[in-house]
Amino acid sequence: MRENLNLFFILSFISVAIAFAFAFYLYSWVKKARVGNSRIEEVSILIKDGANTFMRREYKILFTFAFIVAAIIFFFLPHPFWIGNIKNNLMMAVSYLCGTFFSAVAGKIGVMVATMSNGRVAESAKEGIRPAFLLGFRGGSVMGLLVVGCSLLGITLILIVTGDSSIVLSFSFGASSLALFAKAGGGIFTKTADVAADLTGKVELGIAEDDPRNPAVIADNVGDNVGDVAGMGADLFDSNVAAMASALVIASSLADTGLNNISMVLCYSVLGLLSSVLGIMSARIGKNGNPTKALNSSTYTTTLIFLVLTAIATYILPGFSWRIWGSSAVGLLVGVIIGITTDYFTDDSCPIVQKVASASSRGSAFTILSGVSYGFISALPAMAGIAISALVAYKLSEPIGEGYAIFGIAMAAVGMLSIVGMIISNDAYGPIVDNARGLAEMGGLGEETIKVADELDSAGNTVKAVTKGFSIGAAGLTVISLLGAFLSEVNAVLESAGLDIITGFDIMDPVVFFGVLVGASVPAVFSSLLILGVDRNAERMVDEIHRQFETVKGLKEGQVSPDYERCIDIATIGALRELVPAGLFAIFMTLVVGFIGGAEAIGGFLLGNIVSGLLLALFMSNSGGLWDNSKKYIESGKEGGKGSNAHKAAVIGDTVGDPFKDTAGPSINTQITVVSLVSSLSASLFVFFSIF
Amino acid sequence: MRENLNLFFILSFISVAIAFAFAFYLYSWVKKARVGNSRIEEVSILIKDGANTFMRREYKILFTFAFIVAAIIFFFLPHPFWIGNIKNNLMMAVSYLCGTFFSAVAGKIGVMVATMSNGRVAESAKEGIRPAFLLGFRGGSVMGLLVVGCSLLGITLILIVTGDSSIVLSFSFGASSLALFAKAGGGIFTKTADVAADLTGKVELGIAEDDPRNPAVIADNVGDNVGDVAGMGADLFDSNVAAMASALVIASSLADTGLNNISMVLCYSVLGLLSSVLGIMSARIGKNGNPTKALNSSTYTTTLIFLVLTAIATYILPGFSWRIWGSSAVGLLVGVIIGITTDYFTDDSCPIVQKVASASSRGSAFTILSGVSYGFISALPAMAGIAISALVAYKLSEPIGEGYAIFGIAMAAVGMLSIVGMIISNDAYGPIVDNARGLAEMGGLGEETIKVADELDSAGNTVKAVTKGFSIGAAGLTVISLLGAFLSEVNAVLESAGLDIITGFDIMDPVVFFGVLVGASVPAVFSSLLILGVDRNAERMVDEIHRQFETVKGLKEGQVSPDYERCIDIATIGALRELVPAGLFAIFMTLVVGFIGGAEAIGGFLLGNIVSGLLLALFMSNSGGLWDNSKKYIESGKEGGKGSNAHKAAVIGDTVGDPFKDTAGPSINTQITVVSLVSSLSASLFVFFSIF
Repeated sequence: MRENLNLFFILSFISVAIAFAFAFYLYSWVKKARVGNSRIEEVSILIKDGANTFMRREYKILFTFAFIVAAIIFFFLPHPFWIGNIKNNLMMAVSYLCGTFFSAVAGKIGVMVATMSNGRVAESAKEGIRPAFLLGFRGGSVMGLLVVGCSLLGITLILIVTGDSSIVLSFSFGASSLALFAKAGGGIFTKTADVAADLTGKVELGIAEDDPRNPAVIADNVGDNVGDVAGMGADLFDSNVAAMASALVIASSLADTGLNNISMVLCYSVLGLLSSVLGIMSARIGKNGNPTKALNSSTYTTTLIFLVLTAIATYILPGFSWRIWGSSAVGLLVGVIIGITTDYFTDDSCPIVQKVASASSRGSAFTILSGVSYGFISALPAMAGIAISALVAYKLSEPIGEGYAIFGIAMAAVGMLSIVGMIISNDAYGPIVDNARGLAEMGGLGEETIKVADELDSAGNTVKAVTKGFSIGAAGLTVISLLGAFLSEVNAVLESAGLDIITGFDIMDPVVFFGVLVGASVPAVFSSLLILGVDRNAERMVDEIHRQFETVKGLKEGQVSPDYERCIDIATIGALRELVPAGLFAIFMTLVVGFIGGAEAIGGFLLGNIVSGLLLALFMSNSGGLWDNSKKYIESGKEGGKGSNAHKAAVIGDTVGDPFKDTAGPSINTQITVVSLVSSLSASLFVFFSIF
Repeated sequence: MRENLNLFFILSFISVAIAFAFAFYLYSWVKKARVGNSRIEEVSILIKDGANTFMRREYKILFTFAFIVAAIIFFFLPHPFWIGNIKNNLMMAVSYLCGTFFSAVAGKIGVMVATMSNGRVAESAKEGIRPAFLLGFRGGSVMGLLVVGCSLLGITLILIVTGDSSIVLSFSFGASSLALFAKAGGGIFTKTADVAADLTGKVELGIAEDDPRNPAVIADNVGDNVGDVAGMGADLFDSNVAAMASALVIASSLADTGLNNISMVLCYSVLGLLSSVLGIMSARIGKNGNPTKALNSSTYTTTLIFLVLTAIATYILPGFSWRIWGSSAVGLLVGVIIGITTDYFTDDSCPIVQKVASASSRGSAFTILSGVSYGFISALPAMAGIAISALVAYKLSEPIGEGYAIFGIAMAAVGMLSIVGMIISNDAYGPIVDNARGLAEMGGLGEETIKVADELDSAGNTVKAVTKGFSIGAAGLTVISLLGAFLSEVNAVLESAGLDIITGFDIMDPVVFFGVLVGASVPAVFSSLLILGVDRNAERMVDEIHRQFETVKGLKEGQVSPDYERCIDIATIGALRELVPAGLFAIFMTLVVGFIGGAEAIGGFLLGNIVSGLLLALFMSNSGGLWDNSKKYIESGKEGGKGSNAHKAAVIGDTVGDPFKDTAGPSINTQITVVSLVSSLSASLFVFFSIF
């Protein structure tokens, strides 16, 4: 590296220290709050233990998997060990393990704090919206700060030790592996429990959602934490690291133009972290304030702070470029816009949700048809937004010099993800207040408190749709830059072998085209395998619930507690079992296409994968959100209200939407990143050992 | 043109004459059959009149539309009239009109013969499978022969008059415009009627599918004809012409290597037509034979005859290449293989249908989830098949010389579509025997006859899934070659303006990438608009049916005939009204992307469109077929049989699947072709007038 990065390494350590310190402060602040109700405490501990059980098992399998992958990396990457420098192979393997480990630690602590917060939020909801909101939000913020802090720390350490950006790719691959387990596994877990609890509880027995007699009810609450807190956190950890990694790889492949490219990447990440800290501090709500507004306004504050801070940095620091600043600003703004359009398609005050609700009054087939249609339509603005931001970033950065155009896109992704700390905080808030609502019901805290919890929960749902749109958009831009990183890797391999470099991937080349078609079908199959997994697993849990109701005496009457553990066990084991084929399928297809068609086919494969992956992820997340909110809209008394035919139809829509929006849709992001990283890491294998 | 094509022009006229003569013979043969039952005659005339009403209105709107487009073409294409040679503009406009006209004539006569055959098939079903099968198949074959004959005739005439292959693109665009109306409009019509008839008849009143008291029953039967006969015919007319047109455009852009490329295209098309004639002649069935087997074996016979005839032609004719023969053979074989894999996902003797049926016993949400999942999974083999055939054709033809690789792909598409006459015959057989089944019931021909008709109908459904897979595969290969044709057009424009030609479309170019992302979302939005259209239109028809049952005395008791015409009217007007926004949307997006990003963006746009279009078309067609057959499987007594909870869930799946498989899915083909042709025709506009 030509640049002197010491200043930025130090800044990076300082900002990570600030983030960790602030996270610890928030943790202590939340911990100080009181849980008075013994029933809440009891259930809260059950949830915590369930989440720990799942994560322990998940991490056990994950680390076995990770050690195998690390061994493979050690032997074969970046070059088979008998060809290259074995020190590089070792660094790659260690860096991979660090990626899984850092993400795992962030996830573990985040879930710990979230499961500690839920009871406290329920308790403080007795005193109104204000204290409960702050507790929920600050509990979630711990996760946000840890994710960004850990990712920045890991990348900085690797850069200092190895001085080689392409090793960062391996760290990123580690993070992706974890995200695959956390997001897809957690997603299967949470929807298994949710679907089984709904089917047996609401549909068969006609009892309330959080009724403690239902053996699946604790598993359902555990699912919120492991799916939404740990899963979403790992997903965004992954995207964030991937964005930085690809920007770093591209930055170090650029010819010298006097700009300090790597410094820019580090500096923007540091400022993003600090902006999130300030944004989290700024979160306030009035006595009877609107929690949705409060969450959104902190997001906008963070965005603004980031733009101002990076502008100042660009102005005062040497070798920083306004064009790059513009690119990252475009990325960030488009992220916010995608969030807003997602909201349009899924918020119940907007016409789309109301149309689906009204279609439901004509039967569930129309619920499905209209939800699918609007879900597909909702993909257009987001995809056009990603396309336009990539185009603008490219054109802005192109004049700087050769290769800068694609660096501009990478920086747009970094820009979009700069506020990720804030995004995760908002997102983790959701399951905390969702759990709190359940606890308030189980603890019998009274209607007034449940109403407060409901309001907090509804804000969580709305904001969740927005952050989901945001995270898909971020993944979109990130993988474009990963495509750039892949090309850089391929050319590095070709150059070192004295071969001609390739300048791009031509659609008219049938090897590329072959890759595109196969790549496009992978997310479709991947998400289908996950949905079928949820389906099978829910079936197992329904059988268990039936068994308990039939064999345990006094359970229906509420005299005996059900065996919650068994349901948690089923969800855990099933989730991990169903996840593996889907993950292996995606990796296997990458290797098949790579060994058939070489680097060109993989270029096409990644493109096809990104395009159909984005389309399906947006479709599934948004239709799912749409169905969920249509059901809630009807439950609020519209179209005949609860118990009407429209409501029955909407419940079916919601059940279909559950694995769409919480398992398959958001896991596609991770699948895309995993496939991109496998490709970049295996670049040299594909260049030398392919059929065509 | 360098080649002397006179021999092939003459051969083309001879084969067209043979096809037309044979079609006329089949028509007379069918006409000779007797319709004895007056009730059948009466209903049969109602169906015929309904179909004519729809087609008259459709053609009226279509020709208004076509004249406007022709005027636009005349003023602006291939060059604005103040720049280029105005004779070319005139030829383009006329050729466009011919495209719509030839396809319209084929569709009109085909539907006439189909609506004439249905009653005769019902009548002859009294005498057993054998005579009824032959009547149904030969009635459908008239459509098959006319479609291929008309397309070959039109293209030959244009080549003789203008000597310019790129004018053929305009003919192809005309055919596409018609297909858009016929397929999407007919698709909306048929599903409006089907859904409305099912909802009111089967679900609300509990009467049989073809009960004459239901006011929508005739509209439903009309829909089979205008959707499946006219619509599918126009779709395959369109694909066939597009395949030939793109092969011709590429052939005439090739450097001279001593090969007679244009001759090969013409000769293969002529031999394809003759093979279909022989295949249709060969169709036989034993006294109690299996109609599915009979249909499939004629398809295989046609395939074999085509391969042998083209091999002979390649051996004896000068300037023919074995590599090109190989390419078209690969295309044809892959088409057959795609058909077989489609069958695996949709046939009720295969495990997938049975799994969806078993999921249905747990509720309709699981019917939907499993159907969606398997639908997505089913896309993989077909997409990989298309990708591999393109790759093989390319690699086979590449050694011939520059540009031949893409010509090889175009010839693979021509090969796949060579047996299109046979495919359409099989496909048109479906609605004829479906109608016959309804007529047998309405005419009270007794259980034995209905059983025979049922058997014929079931064969129609099975073969329909196969032909649908085939037509999607064919469209896939065709549009790849259309992408090649687009590139040829762009380069012709650039060369004539003295500019550098472009060699391809690089994925890493953000303008291309922008096009890819937007292009990929277009089929999603297009198909959603059609589904929502069916939804809205069915709602109108349900209201009308309710009105009739409530206000017309004696209708429920069967003493008075319902007002069938009103339902046909609603379906007609609604179909045409709902179709327009979807069609205009696709064309509008093409123009927007073209004027923003120029030819590069359109290259990406077409790729994105093809990829997501294929994925969604396969997903929708196959899930729809899967749900339909799962319902039938349950109705055959499995999973509790008719009236069970599984059956109720399966009916919901079938209702969701109806617009998937008969409206949206197959219309996507046409949307892709329309967009490709708009792009090729507007190539020079995009080159000179774009922002980036």
